[in-house]
Amino acid sequence: MLTCEITHRIAYYETDTMGYVHHSNYIRLFERARTELMRGLGYTYAEMEASGVMMPLIEASCRYHSPGRYDDLLTVKATIREMPVTRMHLDYEVHNASGVLLCSGHTTLVFVDARTRKPLRAPEAFVEKLRVMN
Amino acid sequence: MLTCEITHRIAYYETDTMGYVHHSNYIRLFERARTELMRGLGYTYAEMEASGVMMPLIEASCRYHSPGRYDDLLTVKATIREMPVTRMHLDYEVHNASGVLLCSGHTTLVFVDARTRKPLRAPEAFVEKLRVMN
Amino acid sequence: MLTCEITHRIAYYETDTMGYVHHSNYIRLFERARTELMRGLGYTYAEMEASGVMMPLIEASCRYHSPGRYDDLLTVKATIREMPVTRMHLDYEVHNASGVLLCSGHTTLVFVDARTRKPLRAPEAFVEKLRVMN
Amino acid sequence: MLTCEITHRIAYYETDTMGYVHHSNYIRLFERARTELMRGLGYTYAEMEASGVMMPLIEASCRYHSPGRYDDLLTVKATIREMPVTRMHLDYEVHNASGVLLCSGHTTLVFVDARTRKPLRAPEAFVEKLRVMN
Repeated sequence: MLTCEITHRIAYYETDTMGYVHHSNYIRLFERARTELMRGLGYTYAEMEASGVMMPLIEASCRYHSPGRYDDLLTVKATIREMPVTRMHLDYEVHNASGVLLCSGHTTLVFVDARTRKPLRAPEAFVEKLRVMN
Repeated sequence: MLTCEITHRIAYYETDTMGYVHHSNYIRLFERARTELMRGLGYTYAEMEASGVMMPLIEASCRYHSPGRYDDLLTVKATIREMPVTRMHLDYEVHNASGVLLCSGHTTLVFVDARTRKPLRAPEAFVEKLRVMN
Repeated sequence: MLTCEITHRIAYYETDTMGYVHHSNYIRLFERARTELMRGLGYTYAEMEASGVMMPLIEASCRYHSPGRYDDLLTVKATIREMPVTRMHLDYEVHNASGVLLCSGHTTLVFVDARTRKPLRAPEAFVEKLRVMN
Repeated sequence: MLTCEITHRIAYYETDTMGYVHHSNYIRLFERARTELMRGLGYTYAEMEASGVMMPLIEASCRYHSPGRYDDLLTVKATIREMPVTRMHLDYEVHNASGVLLCSGHTTLVFVDARTRKPLRAPEAFVEKLRVMN
């Protein structure tokens, strides 16, 4: 199990007329946390792409527990629970500064050849980094 | 069962470096289709809010089947399968102009008092409109 | 002078806590109108890219006259006032359904080689289409 | 003259098919820097709104000098050059981690009564904070 936490300040453009963080933005915050998890692993997503491998999503889900608001300083936690083979599963939790859970979610990503866009197995060097961290 | 279909042209700002429609945008398209479904029903979401009722999401999920791209003319179909009581469940499908399924998804919304933000039952006038359409 | 008008329905995700269309979104609407202007010309931006030419912006400006709101049906008008040589200048106006001017703006785009990202002159075939329309 | 610098990591959803940061996003980064400038001043925008004053934009402009890309760590600098009376003018510069200027811009904001949405003078307490910092 590998975890990464980032903080993210909610800007005006991320809120809506209801005064809440628009629900679509949590999926974007998941991406930010996932990116930093990979950076912490020593294998950034930018390097993944530079090596010819892309990781599109095949699935995403969110449960909205409590609303986020303008200027909230959110904590976004991403967790990889199992070693990826052809898919990478991540869980997420978003809390506000008072520790209230705003959103929890899950994404599934696959590995594809950046040129052909055909599925690949997780690059061995990436899996190795994950093994070392576990 | 009540269905509404809209078309949506993918703009540059909805794509990403991968050349795909960014996955977070499908949830935004679901919202567009849901809004037009309510308009078609003769009870717009704007009227819902004007009457003091808001409908935040408590859940959203997407499955990404095939990538959308810049300038694709997408069809987004929203479907209500059951009469809402305290929750409204909708299913969605997004196809491109060639009929390829790009994304399918689901959202659950609740009814809340716009002032107190406390849960409510679906407004009777809204449910009545749904009954008439079914 | 060549003009194109589109309509655009404001979705919840395009508004903010102030209850207004977030100011950054007008620049995105300019893009939608510009894209349809090119389509109307018979030379889509997608074709432009397919021919190896990209058109990044070098300048954008907006004046916000009156706020847009959720569910407003906006009209976005894009106008090309002069034949492009190395730059293409466009003016924009956004009105709501009551005819109130919400935003006016301007963008300048350049033509670049999609591979080298070096500046180019406007493709002759594109300029020819503009000439025919004028 | 009062200045504030923030850093912002470019996420995938902020890029486009061209592989660049979408031009509309710089205006959003300006907002992030402006928000932190006000926080540094000891008078956050959230407090401004809580006191019944909103600050909508009436003007924004950007010049795009060089493209930003996925995973770039950008520095966004906001500067107030003069004391606000009824308008607040800010200048912005966005650089990447190599010190390349990507975007420069300007915004003008006004002060309005949150309830009536009528123009106001800059709140005296806010102007006082600015005076102390200068």
